[in-house]
Amino acid sequence: MINPLPLLRFRPLGIDTAHEYVVYMNAGCHICRSEGFAAQARLVVSANGRSIIATLNTVKGNLLGIDEASLSLSAQRALNLHEHDNLAFSHVPVLQSESYLRAKIYGQRLAPSELSAIINDTVAGRLSDLHLAAFVSACAGERLDIDETVALTRAMVAAGATLDWGSHPIVDKHCVGGLPGNRTTPIVVAIVSACGLTMPKTSSRAITSPAGTADTMEVLAPVNLDLAGIRRVVGNTGGCVVWGGAMQLSPADDILIQVERPLDLDSDGQLVASILSKKLAAGSDQVLIDIPVGPTAKVRTLETATRLQARLLAVGTQLGIHVQVMITDGRQPIGRGVGPALEARDVLQVLQNAPQAPADLRERALLLAARLLEMGAAAPPGQGMALAMATLDNGNAWRQFQAICEAQGGMRQVPQAPLTQPVLAVQAGQVQDIDSRTLARIAKLAGAPQSKAAGLDLHVRLGDTVITGQPLFTIHAEAPGELRYAQAYAAEQTSVITLDTDHGQD
Amino acid sequence: MINPLPLLRFRPLGIDTAHEYVVYMNAGCHICRSEGFAAQARLVVSANGRSIIATLNTVKGNLLGIDEASLSLSAQRALNLHEHDNLAFSHVPVLQSESYLRAKIYGQRLAPSELSAIINDTVAGRLSDLHLAAFVSACAGERLDIDETVALTRAMVAAGATLDWGSHPIVDKHCVGGLPGNRTTPIVVAIVSACGLTMPKTSSRAITSPAGTADTMEVLAPVNLDLAGIRRVVGNTGGCVVWGGAMQLSPADDILIQVERPLDLDSDGQLVASILSKKLAAGSDQVLIDIPVGPTAKVRTLETATRLQARLLAVGTQLGIHVQVMITDGRQPIGRGVGPALEARDVLQVLQNAPQAPADLRERALLLAARLLEMGAAAPPGQGMALAMATLDNGNAWRQFQAICEAQGGMRQVPQAPLTQPVLAVQAGQVQDIDSRTLARIAKLAGAPQSKAAGLDLHVRLGDTVITGQPLFTIHAEAPGELRYAQAYAAEQTSVITLDTDHGQD
Repeated sequence: MINPLPLLRFRPLGIDTAHEYVVYMNAGCHICRSEGFAAQARLVVSANGRSIIATLNTVKGNLLGIDEASLSLSAQRALNLHEHDNLAFSHVPVLQSESYLRAKIYGQRLAPSELSAIINDTVAGRLSDLHLAAFVSACAGERLDIDETVALTRAMVAAGATLDWGSHPIVDKHCVGGLPGNRTTPIVVAIVSACGLTMPKTSSRAITSPAGTADTMEVLAPVNLDLAGIRRVVGNTGGCVVWGGAMQLSPADDILIQVERPLDLDSDGQLVASILSKKLAAGSDQVLIDIPVGPTAKVRTLETATRLQARLLAVGTQLGIHVQVMITDGRQPIGRGVGPALEARDVLQVLQNAPQAPADLRERALLLAARLLEMGAAAPPGQGMALAMATLDNGNAWRQFQAICEAQGGMRQVPQAPLTQPVLAVQAGQVQDIDSRTLARIAKLAGAPQSKAAGLDLHVRLGDTVITGQPLFTIHAEAPGELRYAQAYAAEQTSVITLDTDHGQD
Repeated sequence: MINPLPLLRFRPLGIDTAHEYVVYMNAGCHICRSEGFAAQARLVVSANGRSIIATLNTVKGNLLGIDEASLSLSAQRALNLHEHDNLAFSHVPVLQSESYLRAKIYGQRLAPSELSAIINDTVAGRLSDLHLAAFVSACAGERLDIDETVALTRAMVAAGATLDWGSHPIVDKHCVGGLPGNRTTPIVVAIVSACGLTMPKTSSRAITSPAGTADTMEVLAPVNLDLAGIRRVVGNTGGCVVWGGAMQLSPADDILIQVERPLDLDSDGQLVASILSKKLAAGSDQVLIDIPVGPTAKVRTLETATRLQARLLAVGTQLGIHVQVMITDGRQPIGRGVGPALEARDVLQVLQNAPQAPADLRERALLLAARLLEMGAAAPPGQGMALAMATLDNGNAWRQFQAICEAQGGMRQVPQAPLTQPVLAVQAGQVQDIDSRTLARIAKLAGAPQSKAAGLDLHVRLGDTVITGQPLFTIHAEAPGELRYAQAYAAEQTSVITLDTDHGQD
């Protein structure tokens, strides 16, 4: 550390760089000159008794004075800054974790303490995105063995908050994702907790999808509860469906995901550590993992799913959580709606035993609930499905869901989009392929998940026969611009729903 | 591509993010809303008939209007933008190179065409820094074999400009770096070209060091020549020492280095491709590579140097360039000066046969020149040193150097810093260790290389005996703030020059 540190005054610019900390300085300021800092240098920024490491962007022109500096929003929050606060700067110390990272890049096995150092520096924002990209690449493929995966998971749990419910079993489910509309969680929580099991479900918001479980649940009830609120809801009802983002459960996972996604890396070791660290931190001990397999799902082949399953079970055992895996059909979306409100509508139809309720969503939710009931010993082996169906059919699940919504702050009306536009079949044929990724993108262009009522309703399923002019799906939007935009994109996609024209009748 | 594309007006903000393209938009603008773009998304930005891929930073507040967007300086230059130009946006197409990158991450060998795709997308700015960090990590260690290194080098050459001098041999040298003051190049060029060989030397400016060869040479003569200018200088004199940065020789190298540096990866394959792609693009066919080895040099062990040497020779052979390697002593700086003007002064003293000329710089330059004279067949085997010494001692090298400087635009006076401050030994002893990295940092804090006259003069060498109060080195600065800053930092460093106090006399 260099003493005395030169100071600059903080001036907010409002630039959002997601989790990466960026500091902005006038290129002619005395810090850049005397420190020899150039754009993309890393430096320590200190204020209010806190310090972060940030990446430098220099500014030419008069956006910032030579005695001013600014920070990206995440960095501003991390330092709890107010306008005109003084900022101090210094060179970045050598981080031990960087040498462990290099060791992993060169193919060495890492000890638990070394993985902990990397994860702790990740959570503290001391490693740049470049470091993290290098780390996830170095762990990809089979480069992380079971012991390392266990150690990585433990390190990720230890670097955040953990919940303890004071009782067992605590059941939980997770879906490896990538399937629009697959909104089984609210139904499963209602069934399972109605049968006496404790299922405190913390869910995420959408990152790249048109809706996360928390987004869909928010249509039906408040989800931004604090820990005391969650404990109260779970104490009263045995279940909850809340947003887990504010609870700092395995925060390293949230950071690593933001680097893995643009690289599109499906590293088994990282994925297992990601899933199980969240579950372990949430205090779960009976965890059911749904892996939908399909050409446009996250997991595309049965071989990948089986390999992932084996690793999940092995790591789960070492961590003391009982893991079961269900490999499911991921060739098409589940339910009809894609988008928060449209998915919430599907969920309600299933819970209310409505005649038009999507059968696939009901069936998938029952399968998962049945298995969880057996895992949690609420039903003897082989009896889970009967109990789950009875609980749904006799209205107990629906009453339980209403109780949970009330406990979370009160049940809400599902909004409807003012604008809808069907997309029609331009020829006749049998539905051969449904591209879940393209459907998800259309729903996002229509405004989901920011516009709760936006998204799309899918009218056909694999094997259906359609005639020319029949609606394939309907776009829902809250604003004309978004509707037009989703429509224009949909019109250009030739393979969103592929028809086998030899089997159609015109 | 989505048509019609929504447009935003360009408003310059002057933010420098180095080579990475960043686009700034108001978080509430219709593009962010309808496209579902969030901070750190990648998107295609088009204007003036050009397109780039940029990383999004959203802006909250009024820095940008909802109909405005801004770009980082490098992106602004790439699109040749002026204020109020219209910007169009679209989603990033799937890049084939990303799948090759993933294949490499998973440990597969890449074919030449696959490496070309990665390098072409790197140069076009289509891959983000995250991708590049993943790429250099995936190539680290022994993960790039000789054939891949050859293919990578060829791809890097093909992705930029190449020079052809129309004659042979074209001799060149390169130093693997990390040794302050090791400014042999101007001396070597003068000796070798005075003996009739063609040595068109393109050099770099400092990136993290207190001076690059181009910075030092610029103290003595203009170095920013265009290709026509360089051809004229070399045609008239047989040699030159110019800045190569504007010539787009292996531009992928410049980009990859900016990612490798913060990761501190010394990947043999990447390093060999980096060095040889520059030399091949510059049209050289006889290349001498100096690898200084020392605890604070870039290459720290003889083992690493030997492995690097073997790969350089193997790849050079396949590329049709004759490579020789000299492994040299890198335990301490060469010469006395560290910083552009102070190193230029050392260079002139050697060329002018001044009695105070640093003997180590003279000796190192003679060794390299001797080897090059033999490689270029200007001297028979074993006779290179005699010819090099004679050329230096009889003034031919000095006259030749003056001719080169005149041809480059006129010889300049070496400036002197107005402020100097010695750093004294606080105890007596024998010099046991000199930390080149810390010395380099002190020189940078004093203002080098931006302030040409700034830096430091080293007064002791390994093995010297010093008494208490004797000056170890003198800091040179152009401004009082920079002098104070370098001094404060130097005062805190306990091991910049380590003394063995058992062998001193007080």
